[in-house]
Amino acid sequence: MGNCLVAQSGGPTAVINATVAGVVQANHLNPIYDHVYGGLHGIEGILAEKLIDLTGLTDYQLQILKQTPASALGSCRYKLKRENTADFEKLFEIFDKYGIDTLFYTGGNDSMDTVAALSEYATEHGIKGHRFVGCPKTVDNDLMITDHCPGYGSAAKMLAAVVQQTWLDYNVYTRQEVFILETMGRDAGWLAASTELSGLVDLLILPETAFDADKFVARVKEIVTAKNKCYIVVSEGARYADGSYLSAGKAKNDGFAHAVLGGAGQALKNLIVESGAAQRAKVQDMSTLQRCAVISQSKTDVEESFKLGMSAHMRSMDPTFTGMMVAVKRPEGDTPYDPQFFAVEASKVANFVKHVPDEWILPDYAGVSQQCLDYMRPLIQGEPELVCNAGLPVYIHPFYL
Amino acid sequence: MGNCLVAQSGGPTAVINATVAGVVQANHLNPIYDHVYGGLHGIEGILAEKLIDLTGLTDYQLQILKQTPASALGSCRYKLKRENTADFEKLFEIFDKYGIDTLFYTGGNDSMDTVAALSEYATEHGIKGHRFVGCPKTVDNDLMITDHCPGYGSAAKMLAAVVQQTWLDYNVYTRQEVFILETMGRDAGWLAASTELSGLVDLLILPETAFDADKFVARVKEIVTAKNKCYIVVSEGARYADGSYLSAGKAKNDGFAHAVLGGAGQALKNLIVESGAAQRAKVQDMSTLQRCAVISQSKTDVEESFKLGMSAHMRSMDPTFTGMMVAVKRPEGDTPYDPQFFAVEASKVANFVKHVPDEWILPDYAGVSQQCLDYMRPLIQGEPELVCNAGLPVYIHPFYL
Repeated sequence: MGNCLVAQSGGPTAVINATVAGVVQANHLNPIYDHVYGGLHGIEGILAEKLIDLTGLTDYQLQILKQTPASALGSCRYKLKRENTADFEKLFEIFDKYGIDTLFYTGGNDSMDTVAALSEYATEHGIKGHRFVGCPKTVDNDLMITDHCPGYGSAAKMLAAVVQQTWLDYNVYTRQEVFILETMGRDAGWLAASTELSGLVDLLILPETAFDADKFVARVKEIVTAKNKCYIVVSEGARYADGSYLSAGKAKNDGFAHAVLGGAGQALKNLIVESGAAQRAKVQDMSTLQRCAVISQSKTDVEESFKLGMSAHMRSMDPTFTGMMVAVKRPEGDTPYDPQFFAVEASKVANFVKHVPDEWILPDYAGVSQQCLDYMRPLIQGEPELVCNAGLPVYIHPFYL
Repeated sequence: MGNCLVAQSGGPTAVINATVAGVVQANHLNPIYDHVYGGLHGIEGILAEKLIDLTGLTDYQLQILKQTPASALGSCRYKLKRENTADFEKLFEIFDKYGIDTLFYTGGNDSMDTVAALSEYATEHGIKGHRFVGCPKTVDNDLMITDHCPGYGSAAKMLAAVVQQTWLDYNVYTRQEVFILETMGRDAGWLAASTELSGLVDLLILPETAFDADKFVARVKEIVTAKNKCYIVVSEGARYADGSYLSAGKAKNDGFAHAVLGGAGQALKNLIVESGAAQRAKVQDMSTLQRCAVISQSKTDVEESFKLGMSAHMRSMDPTFTGMMVAVKRPEGDTPYDPQFFAVEASKVANFVKHVPDEWILPDYAGVSQQCLDYMRPLIQGEPELVCNAGLPVYIHPFYL
């Protein structure tokens, strides 16, 4: 019998570790692998042979892993380039050395490209007996084909609850107030859109719609005139018609040639104050917290992430199951929400971005359609029972430290 | 029989409404007042006769009120000045008109000054039959005499949990990382200090210690050199030896002549990057969210706030109970934490600030002493069962809207 390896890549989420827990749990139930190894810091750490043994994690440890945010195995932004054959050779050497039949790789579309590339390489070089399986995760919810991504539901629940709470706070004084909440999401507006689940947002600025400063300022003026308050949500990726980000002054690049965003809220504040639409505005940038907030995990999200890991493990019994991503499907019709899992070629997911559909976006920054709300609502349902100690959530100490 | 009036002032907290719920609940159990009125927007709204009737709130409504953050009755920053006798005359007119025997006023030290001033005015003018009772609340925990302030425990729990979660997140990559969390707290370091409950903070910058930029940068360099990471917490009120705030560039004043703070984290980031102590640093400013985060309420805190409201109501049966604040006392010795309540003259609390004691602050930004941790720990214990609907916490719609 062979072994398997699970590793994590890209930005963390509040439920990414639940997928790892699912793989380990499935192997408890049906030990098709002798060892479940964890690769530290994704492909980067695997290349450096940084592997640990997760096989013997107890049920209690798996439960705590499910409520541990961020990547317990560590993450990387290392891009496996097809032309860099030395990396591939090294990886297959390590797979052989550790008897690894299957690699489960959690991540976003770059990670799915890694899954596709490894699978293609094996085929092209006639290397048999390996399966490369992608497990989607991203708070941005921007992967194609899968109905949604594990990690999104918890971030969406966090953001919608934050809107409730800060809306209640910003209303308490009689004075004029403009509140601006900035969310992550890169070029997809899903995270910003999730705040509409609160029913309290006045203006929603998504990356999908070219930003028109005059129209925006006019709307702020109207709303402030009407009720002396205005609650605005903006996605970090919001941009003008020419493609430049609202936060343009601060843009830098990370290792993947992605723009490092942030500052859209401050840009809106400047617009508002300089135009005289309001005298002042407060910005709350949710920053890192929105993608690791275990205090508002969605139970639906955690359980999906866990089941997805189990499903990936179980499907990998099929020796031809490679280059695939396990995706989530939503039941059709009016049946209660009960997600199913299916397999899709990772290459069909890699390097694309799923946007909020135009037809779900209301004009004049008025938010999203009922259809969009109906899409998001099931994903934030339920509150897992959090194991706490001395007043704080218990977590698994990172395996890489 | 007469009536009573409860109102809220100053910045909101996650549990301030629990005190209101406690007053109403006590009056259900012993209806010494015909009506429990709520004054909207504090003294400012009472002056405008904006009163509503809270007497008939059901047990379920009180439960939801306890989990509703921010001031459900609205707040104000209106300062009742002793020389402005017209305000006092108007207030006593309104008290007479509505048959109000007792005013319960929740807030910080400015609110306690209001309680003291109203009581003094009544005595000086021979007005009998009124009680003015202060109920402390502030996330800043800066009130004298009371062991701590309701509202602090929940904010402290939120912040310590946020450190856990963002610490897990910032560690996942192998690259160098400096993370800076900025907390509220004005001139008192209690909120920033609470992050030490996580056990994960490398450097803690409190307002109580004059900030030394060279020493700070040297410490960052040492820590980054040692482990390639550095987690820093800074209080918004941190300042240099000459008294100027780290965030000085941005300081403005609110209506109370308090400095409007914020930006200390960014100031530290600039110091770090410009000095070359690290190449980059990420700032998370917790801003408004830390004082209204019902998703991480401390059960101990909610119940204390509720009981404090009940205690205030019950003590007000004594017709001489005026100009007093209900304070919290901690049991002595090694007994389990079980707070008691006692009364103190509001004038002894008003307009002072309780700081983190010097002897609790470790040198070189190394955090706080075990005694300080022992003081804070009981206040963050327990997680209330949150009533949710459609995936989000249920809240009471603000009474003032």
